[in-house]
Amino acid sequence: MPRLIHAPFCPHSRFIRLVMGEMGMEADLAEERAWERRPEFLSLNPAGTTPILIEESTLVVPTADVISEYLDETRGLALGERRLLPDPPAERIEVRRLTNWFNHKFFDEVSGPLTLEKINKRFMRNDEGGGPPDTVSIRAARNNVRYHLQYIGWLTARRNWLAGPNMSYADLAAAAHLSCVDYLGDAAWDESEGARAWYAKMKSRPSFRPLLADRVAGMAPSATYDNLDF
Amino acid sequence: MPRLIHAPFCPHSRFIRLVMGEMGMEADLAEERAWERRPEFLSLNPAGTTPILIEESTLVVPTADVISEYLDETRGLALGERRLLPDPPAERIEVRRLTNWFNHKFFDEVSGPLTLEKINKRFMRNDEGGGPPDTVSIRAARNNVRYHLQYIGWLTARRNWLAGPNMSYADLAAAAHLSCVDYLGDAAWDESEGARAWYAKMKSRPSFRPLLADRVAGMAPSATYDNLDF
Repeated sequence: MPRLIHAPFCPHSRFIRLVMGEMGMEADLAEERAWERRPEFLSLNPAGTTPILIEESTLVVPTADVISEYLDETRGLALGERRLLPDPPAERIEVRRLTNWFNHKFFDEVSGPLTLEKINKRFMRNDEGGGPPDTVSIRAARNNVRYHLQYIGWLTARRNWLAGPNMSYADLAAAAHLSCVDYLGDAAWDESEGARAWYAKMKSRPSFRPLLADRVAGMAPSATYDNLDF
Repeated sequence: MPRLIHAPFCPHSRFIRLVMGEMGMEADLAEERAWERRPEFLSLNPAGTTPILIEESTLVVPTADVISEYLDETRGLALGERRLLPDPPAERIEVRRLTNWFNHKFFDEVSGPLTLEKINKRFMRNDEGGGPPDTVSIRAARNNVRYHLQYIGWLTARRNWLAGPNMSYADLAAAAHLSCVDYLGDAAWDESEGARAWYAKMKSRPSFRPLLADRVAGMAPSATYDNLDF
């Protein structure tokens, strides 16, 4: 069975867990606190980030961007109509553009700062970057999430799914990042009814169930987090 | 002819210019100052970043990550042995891991802050984020470049090129980002003889020539910038 080195509230790890779930792949999950910078972990991915996929005990695939391309190349064709990175060039461009948007832009502006300040810092020692949360950074992220939700609403008003007629990596990346924000109560669902309806559809998928069971020690989720009729 | 919307000192634009040069593709270059956020530009890439490739007047391919995958899918096979994203799965993983390293990690830690603070801010109005350069940010980036050069040196001591036996996207991404840093005189070549020798090899390629002819208005390049025997 493939092994996935992950963190339960790392948005990029959640993206790959959703992708593997949609592909019907099981994984042996191993939790890693990236900020501890364990030498064995850094030897697998010198960039020091989760997730890392390990196949056949020896093939190491680090970072969400690289794993998603690898999984499409090794499993994509067998999925047929349910392929998450569709075959036509123009559709691939749009799926990759939006996947990149959520894995990089949304992470930098919203899910990265919120998970760092509100979750990871609770477990980091001072010399690992721990300490009190930076309220300026949190406020900026909570402000930024609104225009991203508007953008999701704008996309879903024009298409069945974020990147086109079928569910794709773009939906899974967006939902993975938003799920962390939603746990923290910072997903401003009042901003866009379209975004809310799209997320309700994502959340009800079987691949989402394991994520909704995750908890941060000592921190309850928001009222909407595991409520499928929020 | 394909059109490339770029900025001469945007490291991601330089990466795609090098890729197109190595693939023997000509492009009609159109310069864009991303920070002006022109509506016509944002309609091509809502993320507001360069580069953007436009093919056949209608197919719009935004961001370096998406363009490099698209170019491999549409031109890669025809390159045979000179393909920049090689065919074997393990080699693709390593090329993508390192390309991602330079386009994201190195950009965040080194080339992004240096080009913003030292180049782009000279041309930005205050309401576009202009103003005096942030010396703390510059100092951090100049410190960070050293461990990246050590890493390049470590890789080249074990392989012909950064990701393996052949030149790949990884070399072109690394050289593109470093070329901006070198223009500014912030590439600490004394840190690694291996990194210096590898960069001299990259710089002497015909694909590099147009980049070495670029100048920032009112700012001379460092002594090493266009010297092939630095």
